[in-house]
Amino acid sequence: MKRKHDIGDILQNGQELFRKQGYHNTGIEEILRVCKIPKGSFYNFFTSKEDFGLRVLEIYSEKLCTMIEQTLTDATMTPLRRLQKFYTTITSMSESENCKNGCLLANLTQELGGTNNQMSLATKKTFERWISLLATCVAEGQEKGEIIDDYSAEEIANFLHNSFNGALLRMKAGQDAKPLHLFHKIAFSSISLK
Amino acid sequence: MKRKHDIGDILQNGQELFRKQGYHNTGIEEILRVCKIPKGSFYNFFTSKEDFGLRVLEIYSEKLCTMIEQTLTDATMTPLRRLQKFYTTITSMSESENCKNGCLLANLTQELGGTNNQMSLATKKTFERWISLLATCVAEGQEKGEIIDDYSAEEIANFLHNSFNGALLRMKAGQDAKPLHLFHKIAFSSISLK
Repeated sequence: MKRKHDIGDILQNGQELFRKQGYHNTGIEEILRVCKIPKGSFYNFFTSKEDFGLRVLEIYSEKLCTMIEQTLTDATMTPLRRLQKFYTTITSMSESENCKNGCLLANLTQELGGTNNQMSLATKKTFERWISLLATCVAEGQEKGEIIDDYSAEEIANFLHNSFNGALLRMKAGQDAKPLHLFHKIAFSSISLK
Repeated sequence: MKRKHDIGDILQNGQELFRKQGYHNTGIEEILRVCKIPKGSFYNFFTSKEDFGLRVLEIYSEKLCTMIEQTLTDATMTPLRRLQKFYTTITSMSESENCKNGCLLANLTQELGGTNNQMSLATKKTFERWISLLATCVAEGQEKGEIIDDYSAEEIANFLHNSFNGALLRMKAGQDAKPLHLFHKIAFSSISLK
C-alpha cells in the first residue's frame, strides 16, 4: 500500500530539526530521511528548502502569537501577572523539551539575521507583532501603577524581549533552564513598582 | 612568483565570514575563494573545517578576554564605571562594523549550542571565563555600595551577560545599535544602587 504523506507531519518534523540543529545545518536529504518521504513528494508540497522553511516558520509563528495574545489580554489577571505568566509558560515549555531546542524565531534571527532573505524578513515581522503585544500589556501595567514608568512601554517591552532571548540562547547552550529563572527573578523585579 | 599565504590573514578572513554569516553557512570553498588560497595550502595549516574554526575561535577569545580583563580590573575607575566602559566599548566596536556581525561567541553559542562538539565546548569555556571576570567586578561594586546586593554577584553577572547577548542578537538582525543602548539604559539602572 502506498503511504500517504501528511504535510502537517513533515512541517512538524522540520520545525523540530530547525529548532534543534539550525536551518543551514539541516539539509533537505535529512528532512526526507526523518520524514520517510521521497524527494518527489517533498517537491510536490514545497518549491524549495526556503519555501519549506517559510511554511514551518508561518505555522510556528501563528501558534506562538495566538498563545501570546491570549495570555497578554487575559482580563482575569493584572497586566504584570499576565507578563509573568507568559514567560513562565515559555519556560515550562522549554523545560518539557529538556532545554534542547530554544525558540525557532530566536534561533533563526541569530542564524539568518543580517541576511536579507524571505526567512529573515518573516522572523522580523513576527517579532514586531510579539513586541507590540508585550508593549500594550506593559502600558496597561504602567497605567495601573504596577510597572515603572521611567521608560516607555515600548522600551520595557523590547528590554524584556531581548533579555529573555539572551537567556534562551544560554539555556540552549547549557541545556539548563537556570538562565530563564534568573531572567524572571531580576528582570521582573527591575520593572515592578516596589 | 609564488604567493606566500599568511595564516593570520586566513584566520582573520575566517573570523569575518563566521561572524557575518555563521559557521555552517560558510563552506571551505568560500574560505578558499575569499582568502585566494588553494585547497592544499589550507590543509597544510588546518586538518579540517572544525580545526580551522577552533583556531579562529581561540584567537578571537584570547583578544576579547584580554580586553575584558584590562577593562574590568582598571583601578582608575570604580567597578560600576568599569562595567559600563566594557559594554560601551563593545557597543562602539559593533557600531564601527555597522552592527552587521555580532559577537562570534554569541553567534556560535546560538548556532552550535546544544551540540556537543569541540567548538561548542570551546565557546562555553570562554563564556565561563568572561562571566567570572564580570562577577569579580560586580562583587567589588557591591562591596563599595555601588551595585545592588539583592542578588549574588554571579547572578548579576549572568543576567548582564545574557541580556547583552540578547541585545546583540536583535542588533544583528536589525543592523541597528538601538537594542544595545536600551540594554545600557535599563540594565544599569536596574543594578545600580540609587
